[in-house]
Amino acid sequence: MTRKPALAVVGATGAAGGELLQILSRHEDIWGEIRLISSPRSAGRKLAVRGEECVVLGLDEEALRGCDVVLFLAPEEICARWAPVAVSLGAVAVDGSGAFRLDPDVPLVVPELNPHALRIRPRGIVASPHDTTLTLLPAIGALHAAFGLRELVISSYQAASGAGRGAMAALRAQLALVAGTELGTATGDLRRAVGEAGTGPLPAPLALNVVPWTGTVRPGGWSSEELGLREETRKVLGLPELKVAATCVRVPVLTAHSLTVHARFEDEVTVARAHEILATSPGVVLYDEPALGDFPTPADVVGTDPTWAGRVRRAPDDERALDLFLCADNLRQGAALNAVHIAETVAAEFPR
Amino acid sequence: MTRKPALAVVGATGAAGGELLQILSRHEDIWGEIRLISSPRSAGRKLAVRGEECVVLGLDEEALRGCDVVLFLAPEEICARWAPVAVSLGAVAVDGSGAFRLDPDVPLVVPELNPHALRIRPRGIVASPHDTTLTLLPAIGALHAAFGLRELVISSYQAASGAGRGAMAALRAQLALVAGTELGTATGDLRRAVGEAGTGPLPAPLALNVVPWTGTVRPGGWSSEELGLREETRKVLGLPELKVAATCVRVPVLTAHSLTVHARFEDEVTVARAHEILATSPGVVLYDEPALGDFPTPADVVGTDPTWAGRVRRAPDDERALDLFLCADNLRQGAALNAVHIAETVAAEFPR
Repeated sequence: MTRKPALAVVGATGAAGGELLQILSRHEDIWGEIRLISSPRSAGRKLAVRGEECVVLGLDEEALRGCDVVLFLAPEEICARWAPVAVSLGAVAVDGSGAFRLDPDVPLVVPELNPHALRIRPRGIVASPHDTTLTLLPAIGALHAAFGLRELVISSYQAASGAGRGAMAALRAQLALVAGTELGTATGDLRRAVGEAGTGPLPAPLALNVVPWTGTVRPGGWSSEELGLREETRKVLGLPELKVAATCVRVPVLTAHSLTVHARFEDEVTVARAHEILATSPGVVLYDEPALGDFPTPADVVGTDPTWAGRVRRAPDDERALDLFLCADNLRQGAALNAVHIAETVAAEFPR
Repeated sequence: MTRKPALAVVGATGAAGGELLQILSRHEDIWGEIRLISSPRSAGRKLAVRGEECVVLGLDEEALRGCDVVLFLAPEEICARWAPVAVSLGAVAVDGSGAFRLDPDVPLVVPELNPHALRIRPRGIVASPHDTTLTLLPAIGALHAAFGLRELVISSYQAASGAGRGAMAALRAQLALVAGTELGTATGDLRRAVGEAGTGPLPAPLALNVVPWTGTVRPGGWSSEELGLREETRKVLGLPELKVAATCVRVPVLTAHSLTVHARFEDEVTVARAHEILATSPGVVLYDEPALGDFPTPADVVGTDPTWAGRVRRAPDDERALDLFLCADNLRQGAALNAVHIAETVAAEFPR
């Protein structure tokens, strides 16, 4: 009997860690050992995976030794430092943090769309896209294969959990305070309440509000997440000239990102054909009967694996453009599931 | 001394009525009598306007007689029935309800943009755009004058109050219930809580959610508000060929609509010039220093008159396109203020 490959997860105690452990517990058992690693602060905690209790190890060389695949859900700076160490110790590193996504020597992979890219990894690292990009790609990749994608205009409705546990806690605290006040039309009360609760890592109050900013400041007034959505989409789809204009907005939702997408193609499109494609693409669920109230919302999709697609329309003034609404659980589908798919695809290479 | 014109407001007790009375109380006193009219159900209520108590009248011919301008904030069907009656009794009717917006014999007016259109009103009716269109127009109209507008891709973040008092009450009730529960990542609790609170006139739960549907069902998967945004923008700007693709989404905000806009122009654009235009246009405030955390949000703009513009960027792949974020109080700027501006512009015609 051949030895099953060993997996380590770095960042198992973060916002997406719980989703990851659930996915590992429910997928076909392709791993030998599964090792959970976190910051020294969380070391010693016990988490359940595959029905067994597992003691979390502190991150150091010793913890990484002997692993075949190391999956990073930890913050960027941790992954930037430790992924090369994992590789030097003989593992393939899967970057779910963002540290290596745009490195030209690191493939950026969605196994359903560009599995071939996995095979060329000069640094021994494979990256998984940002959760917002992953909300987009399964549906848009499938439509691209049929119609030939030329241009995207995207607006996001991103959940608090995309900014981590601190942002979720801030939103919860703000909501608890505003729900106790007489919620008037004017938001003087809201501002005062939120002042008490604080905004955590968010740049503005999120309860009863929307915040048109996610990520860090880039030249030209852009945010890192807006430019990242453009660069990552180009890289995964292999379309370096693709036109992409994105505006990223945080909304008072705990989990599940939504996107509105205006997609222009090379060929004429029809809603019937787009429905057919979306209904049969892996990782996509079509839910599009507005007359019956059937369109995806974060409350519908949270806790599920796929990207849900609805509101599919042909642009009224452009027979080559589609407008649609996409929705996916950013912790499960966005942060955890694709990284696991990458790790499992790599696992198929063992024993090597 | 000439007689000052008499104004009647039909729908003074609705969601935008309070804003309207505040605006009338604070503007230059150009009206003689101000008469408040509502459904028979609300007749007899007392409301303050210009510092004086005013008894609300039930809507009938008698209540409308002797008015020079009748401003309708009431539901569409009320305005459709009673605006022609007001006209037959000698008044100019201002439709803030939507009943006549797309009637080719009714001008659709934003006085800062197309005041000339006011003068030709074959039916004696002048219409004010939908609150979502009004969030867009002051900024986009000014940019159009400078660069020549060709195409718009718009996504909305619409507040509950745009769907009336019932939607605001439903959101408040849902929030009170979810804030009392342990708000987990999974939203089973949310669904149960919202099930108890009900969704009011909304097609899905709105607390901790976003709902990609506003308005009624139209062919091709479109909603009435999405197509209305297109038709109204074309009509006010006098651009019958303008390409517009909009996706309308309701967000858990009480008051103030936001829009992301991707606008393509005939001429090359620069952010510097766009900033200059937006900073000097009537009805627009520029608030755009993301590095300092300065971008408009609903909590910032609620209770104010203008459209706030921020996140102004030149599209990374199109030197003729701008991306921006607009935010305005939908009850004040959207539903009340423009209708008052129209009424005041008509008032200047009296005595006639």
